[in-house]
Amino acid sequence: MDRTGDEGLHLYSYWRSSAAWRVRIGLRLKGLACTIEPVHLLRDGGEQHAAAYAELNPQQLVPLLLHGHRAVSQSLAILEYLEEVWPHAAPLLPATARERARVRALAQLVACDIHPLNNLRVLQYLEREWNVPQDGREAWVRHWIGEGLGAFEALVAENPATGAHCHGDLPGLADCCLVPQLYNARRFGMDVAQWPTLARIEQACLALPAFRDSAPDAQPDAP
Amino acid sequence: MDRTGDEGLHLYSYWRSSAAWRVRIGLRLKGLACTIEPVHLLRDGGEQHAAAYAELNPQQLVPLLLHGHRAVSQSLAILEYLEEVWPHAAPLLPATARERARVRALAQLVACDIHPLNNLRVLQYLEREWNVPQDGREAWVRHWIGEGLGAFEALVAENPATGAHCHGDLPGLADCCLVPQLYNARRFGMDVAQWPTLARIEQACLALPAFRDSAPDAQPDAP
Repeated sequence: MDRTGDEGLHLYSYWRSSAAWRVRIGLRLKGLACTIEPVHLLRDGGEQHAAAYAELNPQQLVPLLLHGHRAVSQSLAILEYLEEVWPHAAPLLPATARERARVRALAQLVACDIHPLNNLRVLQYLEREWNVPQDGREAWVRHWIGEGLGAFEALVAENPATGAHCHGDLPGLADCCLVPQLYNARRFGMDVAQWPTLARIEQACLALPAFRDSAPDAQPDAP
Repeated sequence: MDRTGDEGLHLYSYWRSSAAWRVRIGLRLKGLACTIEPVHLLRDGGEQHAAAYAELNPQQLVPLLLHGHRAVSQSLAILEYLEEVWPHAAPLLPATARERARVRALAQLVACDIHPLNNLRVLQYLEREWNVPQDGREAWVRHWIGEGLGAFEALVAENPATGAHCHGDLPGLADCCLVPQLYNARRFGMDVAQWPTLARIEQACLALPAFRDSAPDAQPDAP
């Protein structure tokens, strides 16, 4: 992992991690070349816990971006970093403070209030500590997705700021978060038609190569 | 709640909400006058679920900022909004993209990976759905705080970018998140001395009126 002198982008990623997918979308939207460094979250007790990776990211989570020797953790911090370093290539945030706040709040609704509750380490805790059976764990996941995406739908439906995408007619930070979360909803057997605006936006996103080519099944580490 | 024509700042807040406290710190650091609108999270089944509030914030969570008639939800989106509208009054973020990424990642470590797991609605779920007893719920809270703050300590200890505060010698976005989270750690009986760098930064923060005057016990709705 000696990257001294290498100013390229490397993303530590797991094919099915929705937080990593967010960043993969942002990189593609901006047309940035990036080497994917797969971290298998389940193999050998989780490669994210290996010493070399834990040194790069003490949280032992994916994604992590290396830009040369600089490590950036947290998917939304990475996306904001890409936006600040490459502001003119496909902006992920709109122009005004008010609009940017709307987009960030939608992104954080997913990144703070849905996904962390359903992350692998949480489901492992529920099973290990309390023997919560699989159907209980799945009900838990569906509950938080339902709460969150129901609110997301309310925030974008009939809001004049919503366009073909979450904000206007170009994809941005909120779309980077929404599409992977809808993928997770489907994984857990939820019908995304219950959120008609989100389903429509997802369709617009998945028509774009940036979303399709960064999807879990298109990853080098997909089984 | 008709705020038409009123360009003042109103923060919907609960005295003991650590997410609301983050925003209260940011407002004070920037010297912005703001009316606190208390939302009692436990009274009458939770005032955040009342129809008038749910219309303002479909997520039915605090905090929510009203700036005139514009509503901004999500604590970190609110703080970024304050930063963008009032950039020169006590910047919450440092100057370079690299430094900003570091600060945002630390803030999100708390706001994404610790706090949402320990939020009131989650503890209510554990009790309601699985009858997890109080000691089990408290062990859960301590587990996620321990994981997160342990990583936070590793990220700031012996890092030359760390100063009297999380980043340099002035308080910023990461400090806004850290101090309320340490307050929560203490509430659940954890010894913050296990994170010596965090304890030192907390002390520096609590020497400042912006942190003290925004604290839970200093709130108009504190019991």
